[in-house]
Amino acid sequence: MQTGKSTIIIEYCPKCGWMLRAAYMAQELLTTFTDDIYGVLLKPSETAGSYGVYIDDRIIFDRKQNGRFPEVKELKQLVRDIVNPDKSLGHSDRK
Amino acid sequence: MQTGKSTIIIEYCPKCGWMLRAAYMAQELLTTFTDDIYGVLLKPSETAGSYGVYIDDRIIFDRKQNGRFPEVKELKQLVRDIVNPDKSLGHSDRK
Repeated sequence: MQTGKSTIIIEYCPKCGWMLRAAYMAQELLTTFTDDIYGVLLKPSETAGSYGVYIDDRIIFDRKQNGRFPEVKELKQLVRDIVNPDKSLGHSDRK
Repeated sequence: MQTGKSTIIIEYCPKCGWMLRAAYMAQELLTTFTDDIYGVLLKPSETAGSYGVYIDDRIIFDRKQNGRFPEVKELKQLVRDIVNPDKSLGHSDRK
């Protein structure tokens, strides 16, 4: 079923209680990039404390490396730059 | 990153406004089957009116074929029967 479009993976630590956060971010991305992506995979991690966002297995945000969670605006910019660089994100493009 | 665990795919029609429903069902499945599945992929469909649930590309529920959406209890039973047949679903196991 795979097409040329990218799959975004949000890997989260379920024991940390981060499923709701991951599902929220998935919905933000699905709303903004409906036609640009193949889908968003929500993946419980077996590693405690991990929260990472990948595009086709390339990591674009890692909580441990950054010491924080991604902001939604930032996440949309990171995804946009890969899946549809010409897309305007409206007010999410202003810093 | 694929392991031996199954990936569940929920394919929904975004123009029909079914993203919230798909995301809700994804969270139900992720809560119940955290350790049993690889993850849940939310996939916007290009086919109007489609709402289907797949396990590793095998369809387990198709809205068009059934003429309705799946109930969450039913969906959990269908998933359980494939990913972990011995698992008890508690009150979701009673008809």
